[in-house]
Amino acid sequence: MNTKMLFNLSYGLYIISAMDGERPTGCTANSLIQITADPIKVALSMNKDNYTNKCIRESGKFGAVVLAEDSDPSLIGGFGFRSGKDCDKFDGLDYEVHSGVPVVKAGIGYMVFNVVDSMEVDTHTIFIGELIDAEEYVPGTPMTYSYYHNVIKGKSPKNAPTYVKEEPKEDNKKDIWVCSVCGYVYDGDVPFEELPETYKCPICQQPKSVFKKK
Amino acid sequence: MNTKMLFNLSYGLYIISAMDGERPTGCTANSLIQITADPIKVALSMNKDNYTNKCIRESGKFGAVVLAEDSDPSLIGGFGFRSGKDCDKFDGLDYEVHSGVPVVKAGIGYMVFNVVDSMEVDTHTIFIGELIDAEEYVPGTPMTYSYYHNVIKGKSPKNAPTYVKEEPKEDNKKDIWVCSVCGYVYDGDVPFEELPETYKCPICQQPKSVFKKK
Repeated sequence: MNTKMLFNLSYGLYIISAMDGERPTGCTANSLIQITADPIKVALSMNKDNYTNKCIRESGKFGAVVLAEDSDPSLIGGFGFRSGKDCDKFDGLDYEVHSGVPVVKAGIGYMVFNVVDSMEVDTHTIFIGELIDAEEYVPGTPMTYSYYHNVIKGKSPKNAPTYVKEEPKEDNKKDIWVCSVCGYVYDGDVPFEELPETYKCPICQQPKSVFKKK
Repeated sequence: MNTKMLFNLSYGLYIISAMDGERPTGCTANSLIQITADPIKVALSMNKDNYTNKCIRESGKFGAVVLAEDSDPSLIGGFGFRSGKDCDKFDGLDYEVHSGVPVVKAGIGYMVFNVVDSMEVDTHTIFIGELIDAEEYVPGTPMTYSYYHNVIKGKSPKNAPTYVKEEPKEDNKKDIWVCSVCGYVYDGDVPFEELPETYKCPICQQPKSVFKKK
């Protein structure tokens, strides 16, 4: 059985958000699909370990921002590789609250859903959301998970269903430096050692010091 | 509320199949996502009106073939715009039976799932499938729903959650001919009237006579 066939499933990339009491929080997700057309309902899959899961459950609502190919990759890192339990992921970001749900002003636009049903599947919850609000910010090409992996060279957070422990390929020409937080492989022309000390991982925004040589 | 935001969700394109007693049947679908990593489980959304829904329910299994960008579009039409209740969709196609499920030999490869749970959401069923078999035929670029719409100019079957009644745009330069069965808009350089009588819709394989001038 070749389980790598699962890598051929296609997804988009979204910032899912909810209120944690009075505080906005969220995370990245790729598992959001439309289920019904009238009324419009979607299914969102989310790991139970994600703090956002608890906040969606408690608030009964969630937002989804559709990222575009030209969205800042650090948004994905900021929302994807740390927990909203420990930090304010919306700190410094431009966001608005629509229908009681915080949505980042980035990407193509936002949608807000009321949770109308849910289902537990082992490690994950499938939330069924009914659309109650949606507006476009600016037209764009939606970022697919494939584009994020193949063009931006991003990795999957550990809670993603598609997470795989990957070893960088050997390359005799130069050393390979990998972000120990998010797995991003440095791919620039400048040798890693020569980067300024202010260099940050473009995906998770961690400092140069967390990179390890493979 | 701008419900067109839903068009920015990304999907792949799959041929979902199951046994109807001793007979293979199936349909196209875009709503297939991985939910858990260990064991590997997916969620598949399918309209209750689709004959394949009944066959998945009764057989307790389904297969999914991942279509590639270079897959024959007529496969999508053949599986997407007619009912397996009325015809043998596998007639003339190369297919194999794996773990009791028929899978077309097309696209990138196949996966077979045991149905382990399900959930009803209005017009649709969400089947939870656990992976029991998967093999790659040939590496390729998965066909996304966006690629199907924008490059192949395909339309959504009426049972798809993303189906929208669309009017072709006006074009002063030439007449617009639309397949009355699947909505495909003829886009060739040869004027439609000059096409041979043997011309068939590339999406649903219906004859030239079903095209209507807009």
